[in-house]
Amino acid sequence: MKKIQLTLVQIDNYGPWTVTPVHRREADLQTLQAELFADLERLFAAREGLVFYTRFDNMLAISNGIDLDAHRAIQTSIHNRYPITVSMGIGAAETPYEAQSLATRALQQAGSSRSVERRGVIAGNGVGQPDENWVQIAHMDINHASLMTDKRPIYDTHVLLQQTHLLLMKALSQRRALVFYTGGDNFMAPSNGVDTRELQAVMDEVQQTLGIELKAGVGAGPTAELAARLASQGLREIREGKTSERVVFKTS
Amino acid sequence: MKKIQLTLVQIDNYGPWTVTPVHRREADLQTLQAELFADLERLFAAREGLVFYTRFDNMLAISNGIDLDAHRAIQTSIHNRYPITVSMGIGAAETPYEAQSLATRALQQAGSSRSVERRGVIAGNGVGQPDENWVQIAHMDINHASLMTDKRPIYDTHVLLQQTHLLLMKALSQRRALVFYTGGDNFMAPSNGVDTRELQAVMDEVQQTLGIELKAGVGAGPTAELAARLASQGLREIREGKTSERVVFKTS
Amino acid sequence: MKKIQLTLVQIDNYGPWTVTPVHRREADLQTLQAELFADLERLFAAREGLVFYTRFDNMLAISNGIDLDAHRAIQTSIHNRYPITVSMGIGAAETPYEAQSLATRALQQAGSSRSVERRGVIAGNGVGQPDENWVQIAHMDINHASLMTDKRPIYDTHVLLQQTHLLLMKALSQRRALVFYTGGDNFMAPSNGVDTRELQAVMDEVQQTLGIELKAGVGAGPTAELAARLASQGLREIREGKTSERVVFKTS
Amino acid sequence: MKKIQLTLVQIDNYGPWTVTPVHRREADLQTLQAELFADLERLFAAREGLVFYTRFDNMLAISNGIDLDAHRAIQTSIHNRYPITVSMGIGAAETPYEAQSLATRALQQAGSSRSVERRGVIAGNGVGQPDENWVQIAHMDINHASLMTDKRPIYDTHVLLQQTHLLLMKALSQRRALVFYTGGDNFMAPSNGVDTRELQAVMDEVQQTLGIELKAGVGAGPTAELAARLASQGLREIREGKTSERVVFKTS
Repeated sequence: MKKIQLTLVQIDNYGPWTVTPVHRREADLQTLQAELFADLERLFAAREGLVFYTRFDNMLAISNGIDLDAHRAIQTSIHNRYPITVSMGIGAAETPYEAQSLATRALQQAGSSRSVERRGVIAGNGVGQPDENWVQIAHMDINHASLMTDKRPIYDTHVLLQQTHLLLMKALSQRRALVFYTGGDNFMAPSNGVDTRELQAVMDEVQQTLGIELKAGVGAGPTAELAARLASQGLREIREGKTSERVVFKTS
Repeated sequence: MKKIQLTLVQIDNYGPWTVTPVHRREADLQTLQAELFADLERLFAAREGLVFYTRFDNMLAISNGIDLDAHRAIQTSIHNRYPITVSMGIGAAETPYEAQSLATRALQQAGSSRSVERRGVIAGNGVGQPDENWVQIAHMDINHASLMTDKRPIYDTHVLLQQTHLLLMKALSQRRALVFYTGGDNFMAPSNGVDTRELQAVMDEVQQTLGIELKAGVGAGPTAELAARLASQGLREIREGKTSERVVFKTS
Repeated sequence: MKKIQLTLVQIDNYGPWTVTPVHRREADLQTLQAELFADLERLFAAREGLVFYTRFDNMLAISNGIDLDAHRAIQTSIHNRYPITVSMGIGAAETPYEAQSLATRALQQAGSSRSVERRGVIAGNGVGQPDENWVQIAHMDINHASLMTDKRPIYDTHVLLQQTHLLLMKALSQRRALVFYTGGDNFMAPSNGVDTRELQAVMDEVQQTLGIELKAGVGAGPTAELAARLASQGLREIREGKTSERVVFKTS
Repeated sequence: MKKIQLTLVQIDNYGPWTVTPVHRREADLQTLQAELFADLERLFAAREGLVFYTRFDNMLAISNGIDLDAHRAIQTSIHNRYPITVSMGIGAAETPYEAQSLATRALQQAGSSRSVERRGVIAGNGVGQPDENWVQIAHMDINHASLMTDKRPIYDTHVLLQQTHLLLMKALSQRRALVFYTGGDNFMAPSNGVDTRELQAVMDEVQQTLGIELKAGVGAGPTAELAARLASQGLREIREGKTSERVVFKTS
């Protein structure tokens, strides 16, 4: 049975830390959060994973092929270089939604995100058999003209992107898929089990509701790295006019 | 006349760069974007400004007190250390919405975000008289219990935060204020001219619609640094039970 | 009386921290040290200072024009984002050697570098009167041909650079000046009071002893930023053949 | 035959870049160099290698177990995030000196460090057979008392560390070993083939010449990561008084 493996990386007791002894300077917190995400991205990516910044205090990573020892090595590197610690919950399932749910539950059972006692835990279970690893990612972007970055006030396009994100979240949740905003006009959806027809239906809904035209490259393979690369190749074929489809699917 | 000054920092011709000659590795782009934001945050914060990551390829900074030479120094430091260049549009107005609109227009008139010719431009006008500088920031956070990070799957709280963000965006736009998600359960709203009563009305709407309870510290002063610090002090008074209000206002 | 102001930034109790509870991974320590230096460089440079990496656990900064509040802001930003704390000693004097000596003594009197009690101290005194600020920097580089990076094994040129560094240290110490290796074939010497003739004598000694030909731009002004920029301009004039001198001096 | 594999990472045409079109701000160059080193350290360390900052524009990495594809992945990640490109030369030999010599020659044959045409090259050959990988690292540190950080001016200890470094370089070169300063009071010596007795002779020479007392943990194994960890364990045994030796040797 093919499974996607997700890791929830959660800063331990972060809320209270940010206000102890006084509220730490906001610019420092913003810098810290962005640096931590950039570091985790490098550490997971060096092992063919991919991290989404999500809430910054809680980040989700696609971690197929990354075992417990590698998770521990990543965690230790963060502990050696940051003033905070992180705990990790790992979950594997046929759908991304179920995988993140298992990852969350494993971590919740190890203690509260606000516990002073839970520090540096790693809980949960990954994919058991190597040949069960499977990641499908849909990389969607917005056709440049429809976002009108060069015409509207920038905040209006920012609002429009949030609306698009939220609509994608709702539509994909029904298919047990997740979607993350990855900056600019890009969204990435871990979407094992969602087929081309369903994805087109989601994109149609966005277009009809918001007037936003999306295109999607979908990649699938045993690691996030490979799935993301194949998804990009799919997007490129659409961009270069090699196909008239709005969704191109590539499997390793 | 008191004015907030906003700077739009836009990566020049970023979309095309990310796919030239082939689609660059997604993990590298995520790392690059987060590092660039962290660097801009440090560079503006060293001058008492504050940057929001917004879309990552377009970031908005509160820049009162930061003059053209300082903008140029920030820009040069980025050009010396990154493979991309950035352009900046500056706008100042009585309301944050108008300020970002002016900042955007100034930049759009200098050339398209996708032009290969527009590189490293700085356009627009800041606050003219030093004593006109004025920044009001509402720092809102969600009461821990109502988000249920320790009970729900993490993705569900992620969706809930996006819903909250979007609802805040809509409600505050009517008051010509902006709002940015700053990670965790935090939102920051540049909100010159919005009073306590209006803010409470916005928070009521969020609670009635989504069941999310917010509290807000509001700070105001001549720089983003000071406004943000006063806002944090307001939040702290609520947190420590020194007041039964959900909004505490502090002015320098 | 013109004075250079130096700040010694020292990681508190770093040695013991690196081996508690076990020896932390060397790659993490190397990354931490380099990131800390890069961050301090940005923080001092945003205020027109300049930091040298020196020993990495002890770094020296030229800090003219940077007052106690600014030092405190820099320190707090580090404390908010790193697992270690730093203490700072400030010294101002007519010569760089005397300034670092005063900075060191101020810090030593506040407690040992290995004390568990001394954390986040700032001690010592900077330049009293703004118009007393004065920084002279000699920026020296090696004529490309004489280093033979393209002919010798890289380690041999590395040894040669260390020899050059040490010889410069000895020769300049006699003039109460300091010199730091800044990477590549570059050295920067805070050198208030050292004149062109003396500098040429030092460079002659290096050439006669090691066969290494140096050239130097010397800049002087009220901040490190300005002195370094003028020094670079001096170097450029030599490089472009606008002068036959090996030392060009520029004063603001 | 057991071999150490070294990779020379060289910034392409860096000298000219730093002064084009004008001399780039020194603080930016220092930040860039430190960030680049920190990034390479993370990228090699994620694959069990270890990088030394060496000259910053030329860095040496122990890269046993890291194949050509991995080198290419590291290089691409740098190219995607920095304004400069890097070339790499790989060499493998029984002694570290010979390995860096081969790595250098491979790169030199691909073009000059100042060529505008040589960009992003990878040249040379690594260890052929996996079971030939062998790394020996001596991690030396200075007994705290003998450096007198808490008594002397900091610049004096900086000079003393450079003297120690240079003396170690000379003494170890005769044994075809390399030595890098890794900050604080630490030195790391890739030293395949150097035995305990030879190392003690080197340390004796340092003590007699400079009055500096060193101790050394020596680790050996198929990767830099493992060798460095074993070396640290050796150092720890000396520190904790579990042995009266000044050199402790650990093999995987």
